[in-house]
Amino acid sequence: MTPQKAPSPRTTVKRVPQRGNYEQETIYRILDEGLVCHVGFVAEGQPFVIPTAYGRVDDTLYIHGSPASRMIRTLQQGIDVCVTVTLLDGLVLARSAFHHSMNYRSVVIFGTATLVENTEEKFAALQAFTEHVIKRRWEEVRSPNRHELAGTLVLSLPLAEASAKLRTGGPIDDEADYQIPVWAGELPLKLTPATPIPDARLHPHIKLPTYISDYTR
Amino acid sequence: MTPQKAPSPRTTVKRVPQRGNYEQETIYRILDEGLVCHVGFVAEGQPFVIPTAYGRVDDTLYIHGSPASRMIRTLQQGIDVCVTVTLLDGLVLARSAFHHSMNYRSVVIFGTATLVENTEEKFAALQAFTEHVIKRRWEEVRSPNRHELAGTLVLSLPLAEASAKLRTGGPIDDEADYQIPVWAGELPLKLTPATPIPDARLHPHIKLPTYISDYTR
Repeated sequence: MTPQKAPSPRTTVKRVPQRGNYEQETIYRILDEGLVCHVGFVAEGQPFVIPTAYGRVDDTLYIHGSPASRMIRTLQQGIDVCVTVTLLDGLVLARSAFHHSMNYRSVVIFGTATLVENTEEKFAALQAFTEHVIKRRWEEVRSPNRHELAGTLVLSLPLAEASAKLRTGGPIDDEADYQIPVWAGELPLKLTPATPIPDARLHPHIKLPTYISDYTR
Repeated sequence: MTPQKAPSPRTTVKRVPQRGNYEQETIYRILDEGLVCHVGFVAEGQPFVIPTAYGRVDDTLYIHGSPASRMIRTLQQGIDVCVTVTLLDGLVLARSAFHHSMNYRSVVIFGTATLVENTEEKFAALQAFTEHVIKRRWEEVRSPNRHELAGTLVLSLPLAEASAKLRTGGPIDDEADYQIPVWAGELPLKLTPATPIPDARLHPHIKLPTYISDYTR
């Protein structure tokens, strides 16, 4: 059984409520597939939306940045934050312009972020960032040293208030429009890797690992 | 010559300023390639980040929604909004965990949105939404009728205060790390179409248009 939390007032999906989903498994699967989140916060009365990488460990989302980052400096004050992850799955082509749509899966998280001060948790979060992007990479590369750990601030955000919103399937046209002789359906979209580009200084004997050649999202 | 506006205090890229770009051509190309923007606004003191489709006509970005949408209802009051479009171009795999990165192009727009009341502008914006997603589609499908026009609210946002931020190229490792025998380089990522899925009620004689079979972003 998938745990399903009751939505809070602010996580309740208001528009097209049948697209709302509050199952933890659905939410975590979207978060684990995404690579970039959009972090929303208010600084001096002005909303900011900043794209950044993230990682997840159990029921916690982590983001990180330089101590000089406005986003990190602002969020560590414990203010309200909204983090959104969106996966675009396809274009929905209807017979009328009005019923065109997109298939997507998105997660919206509300909460307040906390600076991670515990070194072990911070190290685990940095591992989660790398593993989130590309599995099996962490064990092969040099781990962060003390200097790098000190130069990175990590913020944790509990996944307690999160909701997903999804659209799947083909177009839904007005009944009269089904006679219009135009192609209709779905064009699926996927983030796919192209040919890896070796670093200019890569030793020629180093082979491409399978976790890169077989990379999928 | 590409017009280049001086950045405003809030559009000036603060972190890694060499990644900042204020050229209109760069900004518009990113906006035209993206499919989803993330709209940030404050409602009752709480930041929200909502993914949505958009279109561009000249120096104006348009978003739309139902009159029942909280985002649309809130933004049409003329409050500050931040709209961000992010294109993920690749994973940057360094020899240390710390220097892993992503290649991306993003645009951040600040301003206030205005409800489009002029029917001609509204119609042109709806055309821009469809053409933005898939070129040559608008002329083949049924145009919005009076009822659909009334049921859609369109907001305009001037592209006066916008900036781009980009990262390109391979990893930059610490000099001592170049001896680590691990693959390093870039794994480019691209949003690519899969096989189109015809609608269940599509007439069998209707062929797939080339603007769908040849779709690229």
